[in-house]
Amino acid sequence: MPELRHDPIQKRWVIIATERGRRPSDFARLEPEQSGGFCPFCEGNEDKTPPEVLVLGRDGRAPNSPGWDIRVVPNKFPALRIEGEIDRIGVGIFDKMNGIGAHEVVIESPHHEINLGDQLVEHFKKIMTVYQVRLKDLMQDLRFRYVLIFKNQGVTAGASLSHPHTQIIATPVTPRTVAMELESARNHYDVKERCLFCDIIRQEMESGERVICEVDGMVAFAPFAARFPFEIFIAPIKHSHDFSEMTEDSLFALARCLKEVLARLKIALNDPPYNFMLHTAPNTKSKTRRLNYWATLPMDFHWHFEIIPRLVRTAGFEWGTGFYINPTPPEDAARYLREIEL
Amino acid sequence: MPELRHDPIQKRWVIIATERGRRPSDFARLEPEQSGGFCPFCEGNEDKTPPEVLVLGRDGRAPNSPGWDIRVVPNKFPALRIEGEIDRIGVGIFDKMNGIGAHEVVIESPHHEINLGDQLVEHFKKIMTVYQVRLKDLMQDLRFRYVLIFKNQGVTAGASLSHPHTQIIATPVTPRTVAMELESARNHYDVKERCLFCDIIRQEMESGERVICEVDGMVAFAPFAARFPFEIFIAPIKHSHDFSEMTEDSLFALARCLKEVLARLKIALNDPPYNFMLHTAPNTKSKTRRLNYWATLPMDFHWHFEIIPRLVRTAGFEWGTGFYINPTPPEDAARYLREIEL
Repeated sequence: MPELRHDPIQKRWVIIATERGRRPSDFARLEPEQSGGFCPFCEGNEDKTPPEVLVLGRDGRAPNSPGWDIRVVPNKFPALRIEGEIDRIGVGIFDKMNGIGAHEVVIESPHHEINLGDQLVEHFKKIMTVYQVRLKDLMQDLRFRYVLIFKNQGVTAGASLSHPHTQIIATPVTPRTVAMELESARNHYDVKERCLFCDIIRQEMESGERVICEVDGMVAFAPFAARFPFEIFIAPIKHSHDFSEMTEDSLFALARCLKEVLARLKIALNDPPYNFMLHTAPNTKSKTRRLNYWATLPMDFHWHFEIIPRLVRTAGFEWGTGFYINPTPPEDAARYLREIEL
Repeated sequence: MPELRHDPIQKRWVIIATERGRRPSDFARLEPEQSGGFCPFCEGNEDKTPPEVLVLGRDGRAPNSPGWDIRVVPNKFPALRIEGEIDRIGVGIFDKMNGIGAHEVVIESPHHEINLGDQLVEHFKKIMTVYQVRLKDLMQDLRFRYVLIFKNQGVTAGASLSHPHTQIIATPVTPRTVAMELESARNHYDVKERCLFCDIIRQEMESGERVICEVDGMVAFAPFAARFPFEIFIAPIKHSHDFSEMTEDSLFALARCLKEVLARLKIALNDPPYNFMLHTAPNTKSKTRRLNYWATLPMDFHWHFEIIPRLVRTAGFEWGTGFYINPTPPEDAARYLREIEL
């Protein structure tokens, strides 16, 4: 069972893999991307993954057989384990808990070579729907405080398998980055009775200088204080705190907007490696928090995607300070991306 | 002039390079490490760097000529600029300031091929002394809130030149990571009237399971909630908040301890790329903070080095949550490093 440990200095949770811990010789080099070899995510290899928890497009045939459009399976090497009750322990000045959680993989397509940005928009919408269905389902588990949906595209971005896939991790704690966003949004709301994200989106759309595109009520822009070159923020223009409450029309709009942004990135930056992650409201059903903690959440949080192309290396300065040197002003990044001819 | 911009969601400062912003074509690939080519840090090429601000070992000869042991020069491509007054501006909901700061390079040796860990201990001590001298000097500049000393060793760790060097960046804001440490330490002190770091060090030394070595009053251990495999924390056992106040004996002890840790890392992990960074007290002379803000600082902060070997890639999960999956328990990492025969 992995462990969750808390750092009292940085107030950060870390997952420590206590079984099969990697030894010095395991780090001889960073793993190369699989190429040409066997792929457990390809059609026909369904028995090489744990049994699917969700499938689209395979009607009337046996589970875990070919003929599917999208599959969701538990991760074969999960960072957190689904079985058991949460057990919180103090260790002197430190805190730890057993590594309860869920770790799933969305196999976006049976085809090994079609990247997310190249999917037809109808298929892209199905992927967004799968995100939503899994998010809703995992939020039913009251042990989980947060569900993170994220994608690592390309080996530089941390992908260990090149077959197009997204990962979902449900955690029994609210991650620090999300906790910080929730706190900032709450503080803003307490003073102004307006959503911080709505205020930012309004200002970005009025100025327009960092906007990349606007599609059916979704907007994509380069953040004012972007950490990385060509970092992108995508959110609904209309206030909405919870991705799992989006309508089908909104999912379609998101699919079109995200697909357009990925297409622009691909052309501008020659198919770059990237990460994206969804930040949505934490699990308000979870009873482990004090009752009124989430009282204003529907007013003060605003779900969004963050996309980070992996173009520069992070070094000691970034790790040492938590602040970043961005060599491309977001106004320039937005203009380059806006001016791409699709 | 670069800009410092503040992210109101993550409460993070970012340096935006507004001149010579990098275009999409500049990211065609990550820069390869220089090898065999011209090196501006080598002896004989002193005129290829800005004029030195500090030199050791060249007595009675002209500045910026050969014959030195250690040189400190301004960075030729500084992230922040030394000239000008700080100008803080609101931009609607956002905040920015002009990019005032200092960015220096400590050229650790005239020899291109001798890495820090392989320096003789006497030379190592001189490098520590140079860190201290520059720290003290930059803290005289009341525009600077913080001085970060950090090293990127190896191209994977972000080094763009392979000649052994350390970087120093002085910033007009307290970086978020340091602000978080200061806050945690203060909250701990407010309740317990003890230093958080002293408490952690005492617990680590009593248990011993994560300790790597102890040298003349300095201790190196793997943190309880280490983010990365083989992450290391080095600090004085006796309480001390400010690196610039260390005695010569303590600098010598640090040199021996840090050298031993780097030697162990080199053998255990086959000369890995790494970052290290010094976290010391912020600039208490700076008058921009409210007067009593630093009142308890000498009691509640504790300077330390953090060393991060760069063995794993960070991916969407880490960027999306601010928490980490560490595949090597720190107890195992410490044992591997402790058992290396030197």
